[in-house]
Amino acid sequence: MVSLKHESLHAGIVDPEMDSMRILSETALRFPDALSFSSGAPYDGNHDLTNLSFYIDRYIKHLRDSGMPEQRITRLLFQYGPVNGFIQDEVALMLKRDENIDVPAEAIMITHGFQEAALVALRGLFSSPDDVLLAVSPAYVGIRGAARMLGITVRGITEGPDGMDPEDVAAAARAVRAEGKRAVALYVVPDFSNPSGTVLPLQARERLLEVAAEEDLIILEDNPYGLFARDGESKPTLKSLDTDQRVAYLGSFAKSAFPGARLGYLVADQPVTDATGSTRTLAQVLSKAKAMFTVGSSTLSQAAIGGILVENDYDLRSATRELAAVYIERLDATLAALAEHFPPERSAEHGVRWNTPRGGFFLTITVPFTADLAAMERSARDYGVSWAPMNMFYIDGGGDREIRLGFSNLTPEAIREGIARLARFIGETPRD
Amino acid sequence: MVSLKHESLHAGIVDPEMDSMRILSETALRFPDALSFSSGAPYDGNHDLTNLSFYIDRYIKHLRDSGMPEQRITRLLFQYGPVNGFIQDEVALMLKRDENIDVPAEAIMITHGFQEAALVALRGLFSSPDDVLLAVSPAYVGIRGAARMLGITVRGITEGPDGMDPEDVAAAARAVRAEGKRAVALYVVPDFSNPSGTVLPLQARERLLEVAAEEDLIILEDNPYGLFARDGESKPTLKSLDTDQRVAYLGSFAKSAFPGARLGYLVADQPVTDATGSTRTLAQVLSKAKAMFTVGSSTLSQAAIGGILVENDYDLRSATRELAAVYIERLDATLAALAEHFPPERSAEHGVRWNTPRGGFFLTITVPFTADLAAMERSARDYGVSWAPMNMFYIDGGGDREIRLGFSNLTPEAIREGIARLARFIGETPRD
Repeated sequence: MVSLKHESLHAGIVDPEMDSMRILSETALRFPDALSFSSGAPYDGNHDLTNLSFYIDRYIKHLRDSGMPEQRITRLLFQYGPVNGFIQDEVALMLKRDENIDVPAEAIMITHGFQEAALVALRGLFSSPDDVLLAVSPAYVGIRGAARMLGITVRGITEGPDGMDPEDVAAAARAVRAEGKRAVALYVVPDFSNPSGTVLPLQARERLLEVAAEEDLIILEDNPYGLFARDGESKPTLKSLDTDQRVAYLGSFAKSAFPGARLGYLVADQPVTDATGSTRTLAQVLSKAKAMFTVGSSTLSQAAIGGILVENDYDLRSATRELAAVYIERLDATLAALAEHFPPERSAEHGVRWNTPRGGFFLTITVPFTADLAAMERSARDYGVSWAPMNMFYIDGGGDREIRLGFSNLTPEAIREGIARLARFIGETPRD
Repeated sequence: MVSLKHESLHAGIVDPEMDSMRILSETALRFPDALSFSSGAPYDGNHDLTNLSFYIDRYIKHLRDSGMPEQRITRLLFQYGPVNGFIQDEVALMLKRDENIDVPAEAIMITHGFQEAALVALRGLFSSPDDVLLAVSPAYVGIRGAARMLGITVRGITEGPDGMDPEDVAAAARAVRAEGKRAVALYVVPDFSNPSGTVLPLQARERLLEVAAEEDLIILEDNPYGLFARDGESKPTLKSLDTDQRVAYLGSFAKSAFPGARLGYLVADQPVTDATGSTRTLAQVLSKAKAMFTVGSSTLSQAAIGGILVENDYDLRSATRELAAVYIERLDATLAALAEHFPPERSAEHGVRWNTPRGGFFLTITVPFTADLAAMERSARDYGVSWAPMNMFYIDGGGDREIRLGFSNLTPEAIREGIARLARFIGETPRD
């Protein structure tokens, strides 16, 4: 047993806090008969294998149509390519159409998903052990994982029903400063946050940008769910409101195209001037860090996503309207089933409450007992329904009696059955 | 200018040591008329764009032939997949055939290239600020970059003409211990090292494994060039000699298939037992760190590489024989041109020496003046030939009068012209 010899194998690796992602992803495998509300996997019923080659070939045709010589196209796809990628022009067009974000291609870095974009941004912005990342709490585990990989301290800003309060952000930045440290950046998901489903109101968005300027913060805006709003209800992203280059925008194609491509991007248009006086965008300067994570991003993934962008005229908002309707239907099915099993007029009796997001992949339920991993396993094993304990998403503790329901990859029928099972589990679990 | 407001943008980002990769990669762009010996890009003259779809479809056919239902294949390629990848069976077969490395699929993690494999291994093995990475010096900049991203201290073991001396490794591990720190792992490229082209003799390989056991080191064996030896001259990898699970093997498909896929892998068969007493491989345990770098690896890249493996019967050594002959021809052309311009019998006069690797992508020249970046730029601008200063690869300084020549992506004709230009540059540069 090598682990006896290599004692360090235990120290560095076995870290329960970092294991929540694995536990959640293995829940479905461990309890194959349970209906799973535990993940946030996108709906995958509309994919066709022939599309993979189709989209890659579509992008190659696009390059040919643009006049690029055959040998250069071949090199672009097979050889080491530009570290920041080669579909930035297409992503810039998409950002303008979908989100009214107006940035030049050189402000965009193509990455292996949100996760690498976060790592690159954090590595570039954080340099001292006294640098602190402020993050909405509860938060997506990926941002805490990225910070942890790099040894960066995270401090949580606990959100309310309408997301984080900008004044709490200002207070936290000042508190950090009072300790002789520095709040460098703020992580936030303004639209349909994972895990809570909250949306930041427009006024709070505007005030958050002011706070960022006042406290000298970079806002790391993560927006995987923004497209999945009800028609006419989308709010402007922080980046589209950002006249002062306070926002670095972290994008993902996992939900707007498909997760397998592992493709995302970082928008960082902040100008950085080097010792020689020449100015480049922050995205260009961070190319150095990107090279040390995975060098460039998969050319096959870039071509496939590039093909999807070209084929859909750079308008993923329109291209995902049907998909958005699928998610809204599932959200509504979840809310209706909850109301049926836990009538709001009898809430004093059953002790169950939930929030009512207008879109996204998640909502949060409060139950009258401790909803930890052990409870989730009991629910999955004995009642055939799994979910995620909210506690694992809180940065400084909290959410002990809260449940995250991810409804994105269940049919309305499965949702109704799943909520019925969940109601039995909740009804039969003693209050504590 | 935001950089005035965000003063931290300078501190974290502008780091000259980390910039060598960018400088090298931009050399070709800055001096488009120069013949470039500065990169180690593989030969790309034999690629065909139609192969991209072909290989992906070949892998899909392989899955169908294995009896996997269509819906599961579709999910595997479009949805979030297993963090450690899905082509481990195919890679295990290849490792057995190509390198006589006999490991189960669960000891393999598919990564976004060598770089991510190195990050994951380092993050898993290093936990304390007193943990030190020993590395051959000069070394590939990627390993230093990975260590730097994670704040890990690196100490160099200076190599000789036959690579590193295992006794130097033992001495370095003891010296680190005497300082109250701990040498956790050793990074080495036993076959045709980048940048020097050295090969570790068989006896040194065997002794290195003993030293690893004596000093409780994990060896990180990086082997991108092993396939590119002369027929019959390949040496066994450290991993194939490793009866004690001392070696974690870092593989790349950048040279054996193509760089654009950004695909590599980590072989880590060390058993790790957790608190509950259950044992998994180190590769499985490190899944947690991989999830925090880029989650899974691009399914398109995995399918393309999987298709190449299936199509070539898991035998990339045979599949790359023609390619290996191309590199050997280029190596020989470089050595012949050097001998013509710098006759060994007149070495006292011209002051130029070089090593004579038997394969790989690189060789090293010693010149009678300081061969720094300024000299390289003069060479590229005024003489039309670029190369890499060896100094940028040394960990604790050194190599000030050494040049790395990468001959892998130049035709013999271009090599002869390039060495003629280099001879003029060297001849006209004053000794210092």
